[in-house]
Amino acid sequence: MRASVLRNGNMVLSTEVPQPAPGPGQVLVAVRACGICGSDVHFAQHGHEVVSLGAEMAGLPPGQFDVDLSRDVFMGHEFCAEVLEAGPDTDAPAPGTLVTSIPALISADSVTPIFYTNHIVGGYADQMLLSAPLLVPVPHGVEARHAAFTEPVAVAVHAVNRSAIKPGETAIVLGCGPIGLAIIAVLRLRGIDPIVAANRSTFRRQLAERMGAHVTVDPREQSPFDNVLSQAVVFEAVGAPGMLDEVLRQAPFGTRVIVAGVCMERDTIRPFFGIAKQIDLSFVFAYEPHEFADALRAIADGSIDVESLITGEVGLDRVDEAFTTLTDPHDHAKILVIP
Amino acid sequence: MRASVLRNGNMVLSTEVPQPAPGPGQVLVAVRACGICGSDVHFAQHGHEVVSLGAEMAGLPPGQFDVDLSRDVFMGHEFCAEVLEAGPDTDAPAPGTLVTSIPALISADSVTPIFYTNHIVGGYADQMLLSAPLLVPVPHGVEARHAAFTEPVAVAVHAVNRSAIKPGETAIVLGCGPIGLAIIAVLRLRGIDPIVAANRSTFRRQLAERMGAHVTVDPREQSPFDNVLSQAVVFEAVGAPGMLDEVLRQAPFGTRVIVAGVCMERDTIRPFFGIAKQIDLSFVFAYEPHEFADALRAIADGSIDVESLITGEVGLDRVDEAFTTLTDPHDHAKILVIP
Repeated sequence: MRASVLRNGNMVLSTEVPQPAPGPGQVLVAVRACGICGSDVHFAQHGHEVVSLGAEMAGLPPGQFDVDLSRDVFMGHEFCAEVLEAGPDTDAPAPGTLVTSIPALISADSVTPIFYTNHIVGGYADQMLLSAPLLVPVPHGVEARHAAFTEPVAVAVHAVNRSAIKPGETAIVLGCGPIGLAIIAVLRLRGIDPIVAANRSTFRRQLAERMGAHVTVDPREQSPFDNVLSQAVVFEAVGAPGMLDEVLRQAPFGTRVIVAGVCMERDTIRPFFGIAKQIDLSFVFAYEPHEFADALRAIADGSIDVESLITGEVGLDRVDEAFTTLTDPHDHAKILVIP
Repeated sequence: MRASVLRNGNMVLSTEVPQPAPGPGQVLVAVRACGICGSDVHFAQHGHEVVSLGAEMAGLPPGQFDVDLSRDVFMGHEFCAEVLEAGPDTDAPAPGTLVTSIPALISADSVTPIFYTNHIVGGYADQMLLSAPLLVPVPHGVEARHAAFTEPVAVAVHAVNRSAIKPGETAIVLGCGPIGLAIIAVLRLRGIDPIVAANRSTFRRQLAERMGAHVTVDPREQSPFDNVLSQAVVFEAVGAPGMLDEVLRQAPFGTRVIVAGVCMERDTIRPFFGIAKQIDLSFVFAYEPHEFADALRAIADGSIDVESLITGEVGLDRVDEAFTTLTDPHDHAKILVIP
């Protein structure tokens, strides 16, 4: 079967990937849509740094970051797929059922996240394995193209939940990529007003308004903090070096900052700003299963307009081109891979 | 009257400071003891950086950091004093009453923190002004030398409150200076077990044990995180560059970090560690009035043994010498100025 794999820094179409065989508790599925996440684009460019950071980091169970970059790497964790065949003794939805799942594969002796691995096929492929206990059936009438947004919307739901933001507080969303935009949509659903969104791109500011931002600013022209009239909660969804220091410098006293942007480089901050203004920085990662389910529900009932976020679709043979496009994504939000 | 003032980077005894006259709502007091805070020592060495950071920082009311370093600067915010004379129309404790106060002076048109100022005398002086509404009488039988610890213990009470640590969680206290030691004492009062304290100095590790640490480690020999068996809450009380990154690198998933150490320099972190392990960083500053009162209560009823923290006493004429000693404070905790 086919899969787009990371090989020497490029996404390459491999047509000789063995079709995986589902073991007990596993299900073989046909991928119908898989979103390209900015972290995949980053990993393609900076995989060595990520692997070395992973190796240096204590306090995590092993397995998440031990990837051999000299071999093909499978990626793709924002998928929607159709059930083909259940493994032995496995209770699974009927073949043909559209499903999504938290990106992790359970086997007899391990749970492997489906982010960057050498040995488990991800969503940039014709077919992949999923874990029966983790499958979430997609409600009837919901397109695979939309259900593929469950994972990034779950990240946004989790970020908003961790912020504990309440109506009456001001949300500042820095960065209007897919995660920032999904955060805006979730904040709007929670009744937050105002939602202030900052991005340099006119196109992305327009998308921010469509997703529910009350105010949008070009941060080169105006500080988003000029619009804060109540307790501020910042969602940092850029993930570039310098952003955190800028937030610490500009934010009002007592601001809560949710760090949703994944900055994989070293970053310099001035802790003095954080201390003098008693700022909380909460780094967020992933989501809980109930948040994943909430995300799919919001997509299915139309309360989050993910269609507006789709700015491109490519086949497995054009993933590399899409990755290149997304290295300078000012006119893009989400590009879907449709195998 | 006399005051030890910061002049060209040194603490200098000035004998020609005008005795301040209490205005309405103010009280003239005679300082009986004033602790030397590490941030004062830092300010004496790096005042220019602090002032420039303050000038660059948005989101704070003005007044806190606008200091003219070419003129004498008054410091000293950990004081206990005796009431001498109330200002006009001012309801104040009787002369002779021992009091402490949040370090701020209220006048008709402003509230000025008593940290680093050119125009308000601080605790390194024979006499100073305090604000009648902020005065907290010291209970009978409590020495001024002990009541002078109210302010730093309040910082510790606030840090522990902000952490929301609960029995069953593991506390890791990094740095056993006066703030780290006071945090250990407050954690012990709250029933936290284990409290793990890290410091390079043998003397300070012994003090940590006396204040209630269950485990002490020399971080050059052992990681304090080796002792974490439950949810970890870290109190960073060193405030040196590199500490935050080291915490992010070593801490287990989901750790809450309370940043109580004041690092006034630029600091480099790797946000990736924080994200992959979903770490919370809460910068803490000062305390609430009720926390100040709680601190004095704990000192007064003997549940925090502040006597053990006193490692030196100097007169106003030897403040500079004490500042020099505290630039390398491995064999010291708190030095008190006794005017």
